[in-house]
Amino acid sequence: MQTRDIDYRCDDVNLRGYLACHESAERRPGVLVFHEGLGLGDFVMERARRLAALGYVALAADMFGDRRQATNLQEVATLVGGLRAEPQKLRARGRAALSVLAALPQVDTTRLAAIGFCFGGSVVLELAREGADLKAVVSFHGVLSTKMPAEAGRVKASVLVLTGAEDPLAPPDQVAAFEREMRDGGVRDWQVISYGNTLHGFTNPAADGSMMRTALYNEHADRRSWASMRSLFDEVLT
Amino acid sequence: MQTRDIDYRCDDVNLRGYLACHESAERRPGVLVFHEGLGLGDFVMERARRLAALGYVALAADMFGDRRQATNLQEVATLVGGLRAEPQKLRARGRAALSVLAALPQVDTTRLAAIGFCFGGSVVLELAREGADLKAVVSFHGVLSTKMPAEAGRVKASVLVLTGAEDPLAPPDQVAAFEREMRDGGVRDWQVISYGNTLHGFTNPAADGSMMRTALYNEHADRRSWASMRSLFDEVLT
Repeated sequence: MQTRDIDYRCDDVNLRGYLACHESAERRPGVLVFHEGLGLGDFVMERARRLAALGYVALAADMFGDRRQATNLQEVATLVGGLRAEPQKLRARGRAALSVLAALPQVDTTRLAAIGFCFGGSVVLELAREGADLKAVVSFHGVLSTKMPAEAGRVKASVLVLTGAEDPLAPPDQVAAFEREMRDGGVRDWQVISYGNTLHGFTNPAADGSMMRTALYNEHADRRSWASMRSLFDEVLT
Repeated sequence: MQTRDIDYRCDDVNLRGYLACHESAERRPGVLVFHEGLGLGDFVMERARRLAALGYVALAADMFGDRRQATNLQEVATLVGGLRAEPQKLRARGRAALSVLAALPQVDTTRLAAIGFCFGGSVVLELAREGADLKAVVSFHGVLSTKMPAEAGRVKASVLVLTGAEDPLAPPDQVAAFEREMRDGGVRDWQVISYGNTLHGFTNPAADGSMMRTALYNEHADRRSWASMRSLFDEVLT
């Protein structure tokens, strides 16, 4: 497996992504990986390598610039809040990563997808909402609300939302509103999977409740959600 | 594969189930299959054979007596309504089938599960609520409401609900109430999967909207829901 950093820009911000892929004689489907509020670190890099092991060209995007990482909740709030307050800016950063992925010679540009964790989940949903050329987007414990709901007929991607039933960042009312958004937006293919007894951050073994009381790893939900992502990719990327 | 009818009784009612299994030197996990409001017919028999092909001993239960089948919505309403109005009677019929399955010499009684479609979905949830010795219950487009909510700590089974987001028999408020019931009942393991653009009856190719306008086969949701059931069984029955 090859891994390397990829530098790119969006407006005046330097972004440093992380690429993982296997050598292949033929072009492979490409998958973007969007990081949590903590920034592009070990967790998403490992997920990118897992995707590469499955045959995908995986690019972990940098949404904060200079691969900045937060070390406490206040930094998370500042970094995430700044982007969520300006969805157009957030979407532009997401699009920049998509352009980088699509330009790679080993990528089949007709088979692209994006996954995201926590903050990254909201990024992939924003990309879907604006009609990005993605076959699928998968949100793992992402925030589902938006300032710019999907317009009717705009969304092209199959949408898969994987959420903890006890996640205070995606409470039942928010999930219900998201489902209404999908319905009203005439989204062709969407699914929501709700895991009982599951809090925020359930995919990340480092989520032990110490930084954020309501973010907790859940081995069941982690395994099930990854399997559901794989099933969807088997459907739409092959 | 072997298939045969099995006659059994509950109170004063004759029930005629349908068994499907492969010969096996060792005891196999057993799965009950509960029929739709139309009664035990070709649809659930085929599902029982599919389960047998996967290595399970599958018993399609008869909930109506004498393997009665409904031919129109009025008959469905009468047959289903009579049982749903008396959940204790409904549960007793379900238990009777479970006893038959557990008594089969080829069945490993420590590895039992139950699946149900439409009306049958509500049957498996009632069995879970009363604490039946099942490793898992799976409801496909079932009604989720009950007159006897799960008491705290009673449910042993892993609960998987597969529902159409546009199913008028399981509207969003009902799904939300079900999730609250699972939460309040301290159910250890539960999941709800909601399929967008999906009506009632999505697993049954015969559901073409003619008998019931809001029951419609959906190939995507059918395939995905069966795969999710299989994943859960791989977890808890092996």
